[in-house]
This record gives sequence, C-alpha cells and structure tokens, in this order.
Amino acid sequence: MQVLPPALEALINEFAKLPGIGKKTATRLSLNIMRRPPSEARGLAQVLMGLHSSIRLCSQCYTFSESDPCVICGDIRRDAALVCVVEQSADLLAIEKTASFRGRYHVLHGALAPMEGVGVEELKVRELVRRIRAGGIREVILATSSTVPGEVTASYLLDILQKESVMVSRLACGIPMGMDIKYADKFTLTKAIEGRQTAQ
Amino acid sequence: MQVLPPALEALINEFAKLPGIGKKTATRLSLNIMRRPPSEARGLAQVLMGLHSSIRLCSQCYTFSESDPCVICGDIRRDAALVCVVEQSADLLAIEKTASFRGRYHVLHGALAPMEGVGVEELKVRELVRRIRAGGIREVILATSSTVPGEVTASYLLDILQKESVMVSRLACGIPMGMDIKYADKFTLTKAIEGRQTAQ
Repeated sequence: MQVLPPALEALINEFAKLPGIGKKTATRLSLNIMRRPPSEARGLAQVLMGLHSSIRLCSQCYTFSESDPCVICGDIRRDAALVCVVEQSADLLAIEKTASFRGRYHVLHGALAPMEGVGVEELKVRELVRRIRAGGIREVILATSSTVPGEVTASYLLDILQKESVMVSRLACGIPMGMDIKYADKFTLTKAIEGRQTAQ
Repeated sequence: MQVLPPALEALINEFAKLPGIGKKTATRLSLNIMRRPPSEARGLAQVLMGLHSSIRLCSQCYTFSESDPCVICGDIRRDAALVCVVEQSADLLAIEKTASFRGRYHVLHGALAPMEGVGVEELKVRELVRRIRAGGIREVILATSSTVPGEVTASYLLDILQKESVMVSRLACGIPMGMDIKYADKFTLTKAIEGRQTAQ
C-alpha cells in the first residue's frame, strides 16, 4: 500500500539519486523539509533552479565559477606558472583550505576509469596540454587521488607531460598527520618509506 | 577569499540546514548536482516547489497526506478501534514496514521538550483526546520513542488518557533482535527483565 503521499515519495526519490544518500536518509530529509515552513523548501528550490544557469566552467582552469576567469585564475597575486591538477572542484576546495598553495589549478572533472566509460576524451586533458603549450607554466603538480583511477590518471598525465617542456611533480604519499604508525596500512607505509626525506 | 561561486555557496547553505547534513556533505552534494545535467537540478526544484501545496495533514490522524482522510484512515479494512500514537510520520512509516500492525495512527508531530519550547500545545494532544471522546476507540498504543522526550510524552499521555474510557498500552522495551545480551546496556537489560514474559 502507498502510505506516503506521491509528492513526498517523489522528493525522496530525487534525494536518493544523490551520492551517499540512501532511501532512509532521503526519507528523513524529505519528512524534515515537510515539517519546516514552506518558504524553506521554496528557497532550496529557487537556488537549485538558478544553479546551472549562473555557473559555468572557468575557461582557464575549468572549475565551476560565476565569472570567467574564476576568482583564482583572475587573481594576479597567485603564481600562474605553478598549476595543480585535480580531479574535481571538491579537491580544489580541499587544497584551498590548507592555504598552503598559492599557484593555480586545472580541474580534470574526473579520473580515468575506462570500465565506467571515462576515457581521456571525457577529461580536460587536451585543455591542460593546450594550456601548457601556450607557455608560462613552470611546474605541474599532479594532485589526483591515491586511488586506482587517480594513480592511473597521474601515470597517464606524467607520460604525456614529459614530452612537454614543464616540470611534473606529484603530491607526497605517506603517513597521515596524527596517525600511529602501527595502524597504517602496508601500502601507505611502503610509500612512506620509499618517499622518506632527509631529516632536518 | 570566496573560491566558490555564490550560487553554489547558496545551495551548500540550503543543504546544510537539513538535519545530519554538515557543511562537508552539503558541499559534496552540491558539487555533485552541479556535475549532473541541469534537468536533474530542475527536477528536484520542481518537486520541492510543489511539496507543501500538494500535501496537507490528514484530519483524523494528522499524518502527511495528499488526500483527506489519508490512505490508512480511509482504509475500512484497518481496525479503527486500535490507535497507535507516534511522534512523527517517520515512525508511522517504520511501523507500517513491519506489516504487523493493522490499526490506525495518531501523529503527535513531536515529543514534549519544554526546554526547546515544545509543550502540549505544540503537539496534536488535544486532537487525540477529542478523537477518543468521539468514541469507537478501544485501545491506544503509546509508541513514542525510548528517549527522554519520548518517555516524558508517554507518561503525560498515560496520565491524561487514564481519565478517558480507553485501554492504554506501551510498546515493549527490551533486548533488540539479534543482539548479544552481553552488549546490551544496563537500562535496556533492566527493562527487559522487568518486562519479561512467560515462556511458551
């Protein structure tokens, strides 16, 4: 029997399409929205409605932005010769939060995963090569994730970028801050040993 | 510096208002919506837009419904003399899933929490009493949660309903199915001992 009103069921289904939101969480969120003032639901609806029309991709780094170039590419105080290549805008945000990177970015919009239909053409790889060939870039930091697709993407990029006149680096891999060595998995520990640095 | 486009920031803020959604999850959801086709964002927006206008409260049990009476109150095969009192529509859904209850419901829309400004007036208590006095109800099952506000609400309801000509029961409290007794907390175990039943 259909216990839930169809409009509520529809909202639950929409929420359940989002990543990490199961049917249960979607139900909880929907019932919560139902309990709040209608103005709040309409507020969220309006923001969603205008989202894609107001945001585009920056023509330089391909991050989501309302302006072109984006605030980072348009900031002359940031080092245009240093480009950090990330999979997603979310990675860019994470790096920005550290406040320890003052260069610019290049968002690939994914990582190579041929089994899921994500090949080189789906990523902003050609755009990266074009950007490097246009000159003015000294170093490219490959900041893809330490996952299989991330590593595959980094290897692929390293391969093609070595033909270009640019220095290519990769984020350091090792023990996370605050982690007890005995709890580190063997792959991380191997990376940490291989990548050891001279103590100062 | 404002790295995120304002429209995306607005969406993140809207999502972060929902329960159990922090800034981080809100950012992940918003970026995901941004990466999908605009039609999906608009689909969610439209459902949200129409939500409150198409759904009202059932005039008998006060659950969310598009019809009045709701499908449960309108179902003549269900026992109208047995009423299960729950805090929220979500609790009603959980009980419906068990398929072991064939009576009707009464949704309070909350539990007593005077410190948070939720008193008797905020709940559908007067409506419950009116419904009982209208006659035809044999038993009221208090199915509020085993939390402090839930227990307080149940005690309060028990107190006022004892003056009415209706049987009042409470959901059994004890060891959850599949749980090892040694892991049960002492309060649950105490309840389980107090509520022990003759083995058959």
